[in-house]
Amino acid sequence: MQPFVFYNPTKIDFGAGKVKNVGKTTAKFGKKALLVYGQNSLKNSGIFTRITSSLQHAGVEWVEFGGVKSNPVLSHTYAGIELAKKENVDVILAAGGGSVLDEAKAIAAGAMTDGDVWDFFIDKAKVKRALPLVTVLTLAATGSEMNSGGVVTNEKTQQKFNINGAALFPKVSILDPELTYTVPSDYTAYAGVDAISHLIEGYFTSTDTETPLQDRFVEGTVKVIMGATERLLRQGDDPEARANLMWASTLSLNGLSTAGIGPYGMPNHMIAHSLSAMYDIAHGATLSIVIPAWMAYQAERDPGKYARFANRVFRCSGGSMEERGLYASEAMKEWFRKIGAPIDLSEGNIPVADIPAIAENAMMLAQKWELTDYTKEVIVDILERCY
Amino acid sequence: MQPFVFYNPTKIDFGAGKVKNVGKTTAKFGKKALLVYGQNSLKNSGIFTRITSSLQHAGVEWVEFGGVKSNPVLSHTYAGIELAKKENVDVILAAGGGSVLDEAKAIAAGAMTDGDVWDFFIDKAKVKRALPLVTVLTLAATGSEMNSGGVVTNEKTQQKFNINGAALFPKVSILDPELTYTVPSDYTAYAGVDAISHLIEGYFTSTDTETPLQDRFVEGTVKVIMGATERLLRQGDDPEARANLMWASTLSLNGLSTAGIGPYGMPNHMIAHSLSAMYDIAHGATLSIVIPAWMAYQAERDPGKYARFANRVFRCSGGSMEERGLYASEAMKEWFRKIGAPIDLSEGNIPVADIPAIAENAMMLAQKWELTDYTKEVIVDILERCY
Repeated sequence: MQPFVFYNPTKIDFGAGKVKNVGKTTAKFGKKALLVYGQNSLKNSGIFTRITSSLQHAGVEWVEFGGVKSNPVLSHTYAGIELAKKENVDVILAAGGGSVLDEAKAIAAGAMTDGDVWDFFIDKAKVKRALPLVTVLTLAATGSEMNSGGVVTNEKTQQKFNINGAALFPKVSILDPELTYTVPSDYTAYAGVDAISHLIEGYFTSTDTETPLQDRFVEGTVKVIMGATERLLRQGDDPEARANLMWASTLSLNGLSTAGIGPYGMPNHMIAHSLSAMYDIAHGATLSIVIPAWMAYQAERDPGKYARFANRVFRCSGGSMEERGLYASEAMKEWFRKIGAPIDLSEGNIPVADIPAIAENAMMLAQKWELTDYTKEVIVDILERCY
Repeated sequence: MQPFVFYNPTKIDFGAGKVKNVGKTTAKFGKKALLVYGQNSLKNSGIFTRITSSLQHAGVEWVEFGGVKSNPVLSHTYAGIELAKKENVDVILAAGGGSVLDEAKAIAAGAMTDGDVWDFFIDKAKVKRALPLVTVLTLAATGSEMNSGGVVTNEKTQQKFNINGAALFPKVSILDPELTYTVPSDYTAYAGVDAISHLIEGYFTSTDTETPLQDRFVEGTVKVIMGATERLLRQGDDPEARANLMWASTLSLNGLSTAGIGPYGMPNHMIAHSLSAMYDIAHGATLSIVIPAWMAYQAERDPGKYARFANRVFRCSGGSMEERGLYASEAMKEWFRKIGAPIDLSEGNIPVADIPAIAENAMMLAQKWELTDYTKEVIVDILERCY
């Protein structure tokens, strides 16, 4: 194991019906909230009214700020910061999925600085302060509800970059599985893909071979996510499967699975972020395209951990280590296919001719994240396997 | 899964050599610390000097308060509270194992009240405030470094009771596996037993059958603890095994394994606490005596989960469910024997004639913890199996 600092002060209020607590929870952090949300589905589903009634009941004033895109953009973030400042809100209340939460984090940080919030994304400035953030999760997937990171796309530069800082941990996240009963099948599948991707990025890229705790945690949680996702594709409002998928995706990116594994990378996210920076495609869908190709590329070079993953997650015990390593990639792809997630670029309507441009875009994140093994040639190699 | 609130704000600073951070860490919470520790071994090992040098370097004054017993007692806790008040310390710094940390929590709470600290233990008062607590762990086992509970024995009433409250979470816990390289074999074995006990109490007593995340977490972590303990009995200063045992025991009682499992009990601790309230016997040793008997008693009544534990942890797949259920208890006992932990009352030098008195004592905790299934007859039945 490697040295680490683990700190995660977010309070989780989990359970069916817990959305009713949003008013009194928000009231602990102020009298006036910026209510950040995405599309009209929040209003159509009745969740919006449940939230605002609870706020009203608790005596919390709110200013609406809707319209967060499913890949949140910088221009909209700027608008949110301006509104938060103008209205002098005390607290940010984010109601939505990972995109809404991520943009809300950027607004929370931006509202407390006179500088440009994008400076936090390009490492020109550090997040020192932020408005307190309360979240109500309506789509389990990204883990943003219990971590200090967020991703926003700068439309002008086509950079899908991340912000980070301890001040961005939500104070409280309300995880009410009931709010996710109506998430459609495709987004349920993407949620499963995204949560699994968060677990396996560290698992496969750490070079420490003595991390049995983290390994068992990842392997066990991946199995639970797979089981819950499959159940939900049969019955979308299965309460137990919704609860398990929700808590599993929170635990998949709250720092636990990577604490102690030493340096690790997120190469799948690096490539996937480029795909959604350049095309209108859901985050989970970009990951299901990239992951099997990336796994195959890596397993060809160093099959050991892939072979073990094949064994522990997919019960594959026959064949050589090399064969089992490649089997992990094949089995993962097969499972993505089974749940209806796209497994190649053509399924995402991305032209093969764009590969060099995508690789060029991905190089920006490779640099920012110091993924020095990922030259343009390597990224092209992986992308070509996505056909 | 059941509704839950999860909150754990303790910052963990983990890694070999991290003890050097204690000065600057403590300085964040004040200028004067009460340095709580146990026996002279802390001084003999040189750890005491490393800590005080670091404090000195960071400009933190300290008042020594040693002599915490391995089952901490109320009279000594009172003395610590008096000293903390008299010296007007800003922060409690606990250096030791679970006993030292537990007593330090009681001192931290007691220093901020005019009432009797024991009132917190008997639920006559609630912990609202406490002095900030920093810990340096020298024995991995109890998980006290990342939770808000502690156990102290009232010598007069022979009550080994617990204190609890969010104010008691350590602010920072320094987990330096190097400090545990010299822990003797018997205490290393007890540490493994204690950590496993924390995981399985919830696992076996929850009645929710849809908790796959928590189950996988427990099963995987138990396996890692078993592996690390065995390695350490071969070589006590195995750095990887020490690191894994340390982080595993922290994770075993930080709220993660029980979040979402609904109501659960700690019947093994209930009986074990009576044994160490009445006899001079290490906490881990009381648990290795009680657990196999308790598991057998329960598996006879409802074998399902025990059978699965036998399968997933001990790779037992043959026989009927009843047989596999009992096998779990036998395999656990066999493993305790293998690591040299006592497996019956006679090995702990506890006379069989005392069983009724032990059961009587355990009834006090059964009442406090509302373990209504545990009548005196049931406890006697379990204790009689400990021979």
